[in-house]
Amino acid sequence: MSTSTVIRGGLVITASDETHADILMEDGRIAALAASHTPAAEALTAERTVDATGKYVIPGGVDAHTHMEMPFGGTFAADTFETGTRAAAWGGTTTIVDFAVQSVGHGLREGLDAWHAKAEGNCAIDYAFHMIVSDVNEDTLKEMDLLVEEGVTSFKQFMAYPGVFYSDDGQILRAMQRAADNGGLIMMHAENGIAIDVLVEQALARGETDPRFHGEVRKALLEAEATHRAIRLAQVAGAPLYVVHVSATEAVAELARARDDGLPVFGETCPQYLFLSTDNLAEPDFEGAKYVCSTPLRPKEHQAALWRGLRTNDLQVVSTDHCPFCFSGQKELGRGDFSKIPNGLPGVENRMDLLHQAVLDGHISRRRWIEIACATPARMFGLYPKKGTIAPGADADVVIYDPAAEQVISADTHHMNVDYSAYEGKRVTGRVETVFSRGVPVVTDRKYTGHAGHGAYTPRSTCQYLT
Amino acid sequence: MSTSTVIRGGLVITASDETHADILMEDGRIAALAASHTPAAEALTAERTVDATGKYVIPGGVDAHTHMEMPFGGTFAADTFETGTRAAAWGGTTTIVDFAVQSVGHGLREGLDAWHAKAEGNCAIDYAFHMIVSDVNEDTLKEMDLLVEEGVTSFKQFMAYPGVFYSDDGQILRAMQRAADNGGLIMMHAENGIAIDVLVEQALARGETDPRFHGEVRKALLEAEATHRAIRLAQVAGAPLYVVHVSATEAVAELARARDDGLPVFGETCPQYLFLSTDNLAEPDFEGAKYVCSTPLRPKEHQAALWRGLRTNDLQVVSTDHCPFCFSGQKELGRGDFSKIPNGLPGVENRMDLLHQAVLDGHISRRRWIEIACATPARMFGLYPKKGTIAPGADADVVIYDPAAEQVISADTHHMNVDYSAYEGKRVTGRVETVFSRGVPVVTDRKYTGHAGHGAYTPRSTCQYLT
Amino acid sequence: MSTSTVIRGGLVITASDETHADILMEDGRIAALAASHTPAAEALTAERTVDATGKYVIPGGVDAHTHMEMPFGGTFAADTFETGTRAAAWGGTTTIVDFAVQSVGHGLREGLDAWHAKAEGNCAIDYAFHMIVSDVNEDTLKEMDLLVEEGVTSFKQFMAYPGVFYSDDGQILRAMQRAADNGGLIMMHAENGIAIDVLVEQALARGETDPRFHGEVRKALLEAEATHRAIRLAQVAGAPLYVVHVSATEAVAELARARDDGLPVFGETCPQYLFLSTDNLAEPDFEGAKYVCSTPLRPKEHQAALWRGLRTNDLQVVSTDHCPFCFSGQKELGRGDFSKIPNGLPGVENRMDLLHQAVLDGHISRRRWIEIACATPARMFGLYPKKGTIAPGADADVVIYDPAAEQVISADTHHMNVDYSAYEGKRVTGRVETVFSRGVPVVTDRKYTGHAGHGAYTPRSTCQYLT
Amino acid sequence: MSTSTVIRGGLVITASDETHADILMEDGRIAALAASHTPAAEALTAERTVDATGKYVIPGGVDAHTHMEMPFGGTFAADTFETGTRAAAWGGTTTIVDFAVQSVGHGLREGLDAWHAKAEGNCAIDYAFHMIVSDVNEDTLKEMDLLVEEGVTSFKQFMAYPGVFYSDDGQILRAMQRAADNGGLIMMHAENGIAIDVLVEQALARGETDPRFHGEVRKALLEAEATHRAIRLAQVAGAPLYVVHVSATEAVAELARARDDGLPVFGETCPQYLFLSTDNLAEPDFEGAKYVCSTPLRPKEHQAALWRGLRTNDLQVVSTDHCPFCFSGQKELGRGDFSKIPNGLPGVENRMDLLHQAVLDGHISRRRWIEIACATPARMFGLYPKKGTIAPGADADVVIYDPAAEQVISADTHHMNVDYSAYEGKRVTGRVETVFSRGVPVVTDRKYTGHAGHGAYTPRSTCQYLT
Repeated sequence: MSTSTVIRGGLVITASDETHADILMEDGRIAALAASHTPAAEALTAERTVDATGKYVIPGGVDAHTHMEMPFGGTFAADTFETGTRAAAWGGTTTIVDFAVQSVGHGLREGLDAWHAKAEGNCAIDYAFHMIVSDVNEDTLKEMDLLVEEGVTSFKQFMAYPGVFYSDDGQILRAMQRAADNGGLIMMHAENGIAIDVLVEQALARGETDPRFHGEVRKALLEAEATHRAIRLAQVAGAPLYVVHVSATEAVAELARARDDGLPVFGETCPQYLFLSTDNLAEPDFEGAKYVCSTPLRPKEHQAALWRGLRTNDLQVVSTDHCPFCFSGQKELGRGDFSKIPNGLPGVENRMDLLHQAVLDGHISRRRWIEIACATPARMFGLYPKKGTIAPGADADVVIYDPAAEQVISADTHHMNVDYSAYEGKRVTGRVETVFSRGVPVVTDRKYTGHAGHGAYTPRSTCQYLT
Repeated sequence: MSTSTVIRGGLVITASDETHADILMEDGRIAALAASHTPAAEALTAERTVDATGKYVIPGGVDAHTHMEMPFGGTFAADTFETGTRAAAWGGTTTIVDFAVQSVGHGLREGLDAWHAKAEGNCAIDYAFHMIVSDVNEDTLKEMDLLVEEGVTSFKQFMAYPGVFYSDDGQILRAMQRAADNGGLIMMHAENGIAIDVLVEQALARGETDPRFHGEVRKALLEAEATHRAIRLAQVAGAPLYVVHVSATEAVAELARARDDGLPVFGETCPQYLFLSTDNLAEPDFEGAKYVCSTPLRPKEHQAALWRGLRTNDLQVVSTDHCPFCFSGQKELGRGDFSKIPNGLPGVENRMDLLHQAVLDGHISRRRWIEIACATPARMFGLYPKKGTIAPGADADVVIYDPAAEQVISADTHHMNVDYSAYEGKRVTGRVETVFSRGVPVVTDRKYTGHAGHGAYTPRSTCQYLT
Repeated sequence: MSTSTVIRGGLVITASDETHADILMEDGRIAALAASHTPAAEALTAERTVDATGKYVIPGGVDAHTHMEMPFGGTFAADTFETGTRAAAWGGTTTIVDFAVQSVGHGLREGLDAWHAKAEGNCAIDYAFHMIVSDVNEDTLKEMDLLVEEGVTSFKQFMAYPGVFYSDDGQILRAMQRAADNGGLIMMHAENGIAIDVLVEQALARGETDPRFHGEVRKALLEAEATHRAIRLAQVAGAPLYVVHVSATEAVAELARARDDGLPVFGETCPQYLFLSTDNLAEPDFEGAKYVCSTPLRPKEHQAALWRGLRTNDLQVVSTDHCPFCFSGQKELGRGDFSKIPNGLPGVENRMDLLHQAVLDGHISRRRWIEIACATPARMFGLYPKKGTIAPGADADVVIYDPAAEQVISADTHHMNVDYSAYEGKRVTGRVETVFSRGVPVVTDRKYTGHAGHGAYTPRSTCQYLT
Repeated sequence: MSTSTVIRGGLVITASDETHADILMEDGRIAALAASHTPAAEALTAERTVDATGKYVIPGGVDAHTHMEMPFGGTFAADTFETGTRAAAWGGTTTIVDFAVQSVGHGLREGLDAWHAKAEGNCAIDYAFHMIVSDVNEDTLKEMDLLVEEGVTSFKQFMAYPGVFYSDDGQILRAMQRAADNGGLIMMHAENGIAIDVLVEQALARGETDPRFHGEVRKALLEAEATHRAIRLAQVAGAPLYVVHVSATEAVAELARARDDGLPVFGETCPQYLFLSTDNLAEPDFEGAKYVCSTPLRPKEHQAALWRGLRTNDLQVVSTDHCPFCFSGQKELGRGDFSKIPNGLPGVENRMDLLHQAVLDGHISRRRWIEIACATPARMFGLYPKKGTIAPGADADVVIYDPAAEQVISADTHHMNVDYSAYEGKRVTGRVETVFSRGVPVVTDRKYTGHAGHGAYTPRSTCQYLT
């Protein structure tokens, strides 16, 4: 089905350049770029021509943090790899890196195989895997080496969720040491879960069961504490560190301090922390449950620090932590006990649009939009030069984006398999129009033209963002 | 003379991408890029083909800080625009931004006209101007608006050199306020010259006349102090700030602190601070005079902070502050009194090579090399998208760089009009092979094929690095 | 008139101890302390016995920053040494350190002699002098040595008030170097007056003439800047530094940073910054003029940082900067032009009471009250062991303080020679009852029993607060 | 046996004052002080007069951190309460606060009773107890309240020694919350023991078994990490925090940062960190084992930060952590495995002398010597006004100290029950001459005149150092 296409007349935006160029895609790759309206551009010919005049032409988004079909608290994230990747495509994202899960007492390989089985043949766009390490032991450490070699080069650990995903500081240190040796990158869920669980128990004992108490017990100071601890452990191990879903001012401060000291420490935030707040968690009638995720939403005042971190590169990546649970039947498991609400929000479809809105709002530049949403996640997780940019030889993952179209985000119109939207009713300017995945149009003029199974598993190199 | 050229098979490096691509240059611009060894690449045809296999193909360097024919202490910098820009071309730099000088009691226009007269018809490569503001008054402030409109969008002030270039804090504040309004960017020489002059006088009175005392009296703490002061004044004015030739650990710390606070504050360092030290200033037989510049060289320990700043983007640009004075007859003016040594070093020819060596030494990545030497200076000073990148539509300022060639830097072989090299005998790997300026080969296989007058004056937009 | 007195049964509070003790004063000094109600206490006998049961017995206050009869803006501070020191006594202060002024073009000696003439024979309590250095030159530097030898061991410089008291950074550096040699302590008025004067001119040009604009143009950032600059200059000179009237959060941060680095840097704040704010400056009908002083009052939010600094010893002293101008006829000079309002507030009488209120409000402990108001100023300025404590051999400067009495501060009842109170109507708990100066009762059961001329000039040692 | 004594002519030094005074001690308390050579002094009469001319008269030392007969690693600290308190007296210390130990699975009361049994009737000087909490549970928390009421007001937790004393972050948080309620003070051994144990295991596996590896695996970064974590947990709990035996620059930095933020966080260091270093740990022939304690000795460079912290009050207390094990038979348990070396050093006898030497070396002032060694530990742990000062009514714990006598520290001459001295051969100036405990001479002209059983258990108030 691969054919050649030329996209003409758009403004091509990458992490470093903005240029009016025509793009030739052949055999699934970017074959050539030529300055629009020049003889060189006219010389580009293809079976198909798409007019992008007045539009942006951007690399497909790379969402480095999704949880399709994730088991959590006795239920599963509502998006399968099929529904979730389709929604991603609708939102201009052409690569996801999902998390395979090791269960305690089982091997990494077993978990990875299970996730391959879930994903294979079902994805609309390309995908890769991080590995959640729940049980660090000698076998696990050896398996880490093997996984790095075969393209699973990043490993997530949790300082929260004792008894499930939790690693103690010794396990973290061992995994970091191993990563320092084999080139892997440790990704950290940085919350002091041991302390938080005490506060959860105390809150419930006081009858504080509503969703908003989820935000109150998971304190910003305990995110900052864990962030600092992870940084110190990484420093002892001589390993780089990537902190996921940073949400608190105090945590950004720890990252900034570490970076001022020259440490290879990186941070990711998510749209929910940039656009939502504890005001949402406090919505009445248990509606707040829709916004329960961990790290939790913070008071609005924290948003400024996150935007500042994104501008100064103390935060490098915006991912979604997409992990949707339906309000009805899933979020409702936590009525009367916030600690039983499945943690997670839908978002894989909304990220590129929300960040474009941030460009319009003056938070970031257009190039920085592409850098934090496409280029840096690709480099951070070893997907470069295939993903994250528009350059000769790169995969032809290309989005034609209409910067002037207005839309209202809503569960009525979104494509994620979840019964609510965290951004219901939010009006944004900018909309994905057409999406190519390796040259194949998976969304065409806002019609889905892709199919399950087009998306291919993509092994990854080690982190390309160091030095 | 403009013809079309295709460069085949090189590794094209920009601030964000590294890709094997063929480049078509037509009519002085980048017309197209195509993935090497693809039909699309073969379809690129031109009058001339250059083989870059095994070579890097990089944007021409942008040196945002040079002083050709600069009057200083009764003499003039030894490079004319003709000799200096030729040497720049030899070194892979295709754009300089030089400093026109306002004399006290005279207008900006008069100074700018004088510098235009020096440069016009003499340059081998493209050039633009910053304006040194020595005399802030109502007229000067009005002229700043006019200059911004016509493409001189940055203004340098000095916190040192009382009686010559010095502005007091009130003059600085006024100029910053004006820049905040008209989009101009204030560039600051940040040293507390009032305090330093006391230390100079005291040192000379103690008989401390050797060049090394130049380094001792111009204390790192007084650079840090002035850096902090400039940042605070910019904060009061609501203006961005660019600090030139940052040399001290303590000054980098002030910039990092400001950036952590989200202030639009930028810093430049120079190769001499990265590769030389007070050890050079202490060379016997007055040889130390060769290394006298301000800010001065620092003890070696400061270099680590500068490299770290370049990695973490607390420093954004490496320029040369090229301002050569011959040892014989010029530097010698300061025998017996270090304060009479003309301040300045040659370097415009060495910057790209020294920074490539830094890539090999592990200080920075290849992409960061291009970012700090080409892309960011172009954006910082409004030269984008013409300069600083290789992208369709950009000026065809392109360097074919041999990353494996070895060379020994020496005054015997350099092309700058000065009788010594600050890096005499230094062996580096990497060498410029061929240089195109707007598609015209000005250096071809290490022969000079350019000519005075090819270089064109290039008006600039306002700073493109904000947000 | 010197006789012996024993004070029985009070709670004796010093910077380090709180103890129920009887105190014997003989020949103007503390002769003995004995635990109350013990045979040792009963053995203390004197001509006069005072019962202090239920009262505090504290060292007389040391106000290290007053300006009696200070010439400013064409008028004079309204309190003479006679009226001002009498008011001080009423407020429980038994020592002031006032500022003698060098005029530009004149010597230190000349200024000091003039101030001696003003004070001699007129003071109700003991007094000493700092020297304001307005004109640093070779002669001045030599005079500094002489003054240190004869007991004037601290020198104030101004980074504000160009053309009047202003010293440039070179003059400051020279004076600091001299102080580093002769043991003197530089006291700094830290505001960037050069920049402020630009803002003043611009504000007036915009028609912003009301008192509140005094607060807006003298920006916190420009206090912080000057504070940082003074610290750096002191660091270069190898000298300690005492920053007067610190008012801004950002300035406290600079002091804290310096102290974390181990620098001998000290800070003073004043009651007006702890209890008043820009709300007062904004009082209508030109009433704001009553609160015009420099550094200016800040928004209320700054008070927390000042209290914190006092608790953590990043601020060491609370003085008054007492410099009263009557509203009628003096403050009114600035109607229509805030820059013509004489700078200064009355306060010498209120300090001890306001700080006692701070004890009740939970800001500081009782011992810290005595430390910041009595003990540290005495040590800082070389008055120890005579002043600032209650210990055998110390001057018998003792206050019997009723911690339970309530009072309302008012110009109707105060004893300062000024027609308004900055704290008019403020209700505080705690009141001076009886005051001894060298054993002599100058206030007795809230009646003035002192007389002009009792107070003696007190030469000072160099700073006793270092190491 | 209690009689009255007057000490004449010495220089009485307290935390705030230095005065030549005669002191009358009656009925075990300070009855009176009088200025020497005055009639008031002559009026002081007693059964016994001691001449202290030329000597210092200081409060008896308060050592807030000792471990007499402490069980550790299968052996016991070699000093009993009898030998240890006698040695303390010899060294000018008149009060110790020792640590009662809760064993896992047992109650606080049981542990406390056991320690009372060890101490009662055996002590030469007064003593009190902290409680080591090894097992936080509901019962323990309730017992904490009871202990506070009866005078055991401080509770130590360990972030190190998993399986023995270790508390996890949840247990720490719970204990801190309780302390916030009942006025107790949490004392923290701040080292990340979980991570350290991994490093220990790895070091031993590499054959790194010598004592110096003890210092290498217990990394400064892991002390800093735990310090930061304890601070954050205390902040969440709203509790004050006292960090014991701070040894690393990075840990001091965390305390300083917390204090700049106004948090009630305190730090103690010990003479071994101020005077010894990893050079000692590296002594050959297993001699390094003598210096094995935790936190470990650090490289010499750390000492400057500790002295600076003591000067700026970022560290408030110097205790000894006295916990001696004989080299022969005890330290030797760890031959071939540094992790089996009992952790601890002797020091209770040396603290006052070493800190006096620090006065002579210019690190601290005389008053600060008394503050960190006597006054602050007394206030910090609720022993004021009985202990830590010389003031009317205070316990007559008084030391006559000869500031000019020279001595050489040695196991040959010390009185601690241990076969080596950590300071063997160190020459210091200053020596205890006579020691009074509640008026009773326990050391008289360098002869031991005390007896076991004189020392009394002293219940304590809650922390008196807050606000």
